[in-house]
Amino acid sequence: MTPPAEQPDGEPAVTHDRLLGGRVALAQPATGYRAAVDPVLLAAAVPLRDGERALELGCGAGAAALCLLARVPGGQVTGLERETVLARLARANAAANGAADRFAVQAGDLLDPPAPVARGGFDHAFANPPYLAAGTADAPADRLRAAANVEGAARLPDWIAALARATRRGGTLTVIHRADRLPEVLAEMARVAGALVTFPLWPTAGKPAKRVLVQGRVGVGGPATLSAGLSLHADGGFTPQARAVFEDAAPLALG
Amino acid sequence: MTPPAEQPDGEPAVTHDRLLGGRVALAQPATGYRAAVDPVLLAAAVPLRDGERALELGCGAGAAALCLLARVPGGQVTGLERETVLARLARANAAANGAADRFAVQAGDLLDPPAPVARGGFDHAFANPPYLAAGTADAPADRLRAAANVEGAARLPDWIAALARATRRGGTLTVIHRADRLPEVLAEMARVAGALVTFPLWPTAGKPAKRVLVQGRVGVGGPATLSAGLSLHADGGFTPQARAVFEDAAPLALG
Repeated sequence: MTPPAEQPDGEPAVTHDRLLGGRVALAQPATGYRAAVDPVLLAAAVPLRDGERALELGCGAGAAALCLLARVPGGQVTGLERETVLARLARANAAANGAADRFAVQAGDLLDPPAPVARGGFDHAFANPPYLAAGTADAPADRLRAAANVEGAARLPDWIAALARATRRGGTLTVIHRADRLPEVLAEMARVAGALVTFPLWPTAGKPAKRVLVQGRVGVGGPATLSAGLSLHADGGFTPQARAVFEDAAPLALG
Repeated sequence: MTPPAEQPDGEPAVTHDRLLGGRVALAQPATGYRAAVDPVLLAAAVPLRDGERALELGCGAGAAALCLLARVPGGQVTGLERETVLARLARANAAANGAADRFAVQAGDLLDPPAPVARGGFDHAFANPPYLAAGTADAPADRLRAAANVEGAARLPDWIAALARATRRGGTLTVIHRADRLPEVLAEMARVAGALVTFPLWPTAGKPAKRVLVQGRVGVGGPATLSAGLSLHADGGFTPQARAVFEDAAPLALG
């Protein structure tokens, strides 16, 4: 990470970080939400294949989308982002990573999405929605941090319904969320998808999960699965399985 | 286990088994549902304390209730069982285990429960509901097996609502179920309880859960938890943690 620099044109100060063992260069706001492990895990869980199209709702500066495209160079990702400064940053990041032709960033709101999102038909859709329910937390003073961390007009059911509307029948929805909201996530996912997989992310073996990945297939039945998930840390570092994801761009097989 | 014996009075043939390292003697039908690990795990998860009262819906021959009372000799359990032959067997098992004064068995239906259940006010309520949704499986020919394994008129929402109605505010509800029904269990539990704990039961480390314990507190808020759960088997036998539950009557701390 470089020290944050004031931008001359009123854009937020950014830092320049690297993800996936250096495969992804990410300029992101120096304050506010900052991509750490969650977008990388989310990207690892999306079963995009070459030739397929995925949608990310709330793509921020593009961390998850760019990690996904680093793993699947023949895929396409459309990102929707309500905050225009982040959408601009995501476009710049797409260009800086040589992915401008594969990562199309739309500025707009998932409650009234622009045409490329509203048309739908994506093979996969994914999101890292705001982790805190509206009204349960004081909104952070920083505007971008608040937008990323606390639900606005779009609540969790809106996020999941919007993911489903944009996705073809049989396509996958993937969400990463706080484990303490698993009941809500499963309830909303069950309305629109089947074959739900709950994939816990354990901070370390034997401790409750802090995050959970949930994936389902739109309009398809099938029993739910509670996967063994992934332990992130052991012996003061990443587990070998987590290191493979974070440093070697390994996929997480949820299904 | 002794060989099944034909009963002279039209009662089903039973076997005589031992649970919890011999602490519980259980006569149960030789055919039909047979207590194995699930009632023992369910009992281990109920945080009953001396002086408190618990309710079990669908107590069968009494396996879970008697395991719970073996661990908490100063507690009281009321069991409701729709199948009268099982209710009679549960009463006989209570007597055979010296627990007739602490385990009261009511014959009746949770959809129209008898007064001691309908009065409610229990400190804890628990159940091992039929694992298969009505209509998703051919009912086994054996009547008792069908009653235990496939939902009848009472569906999962009825079971969980009945547990909640019988329990005081702040009391706990505990359910063991198939992991592939976790989304439904959580959705129904969330209607009536808070501070939901999902406790996966892993057949062995790294494999998807087959069973899950879900616990909540009636009428109380609080974030949900996805617990690390319990791995049952390793190296061809029980894990030490599972052996403590099955052989030494150790509790499972979900909260």
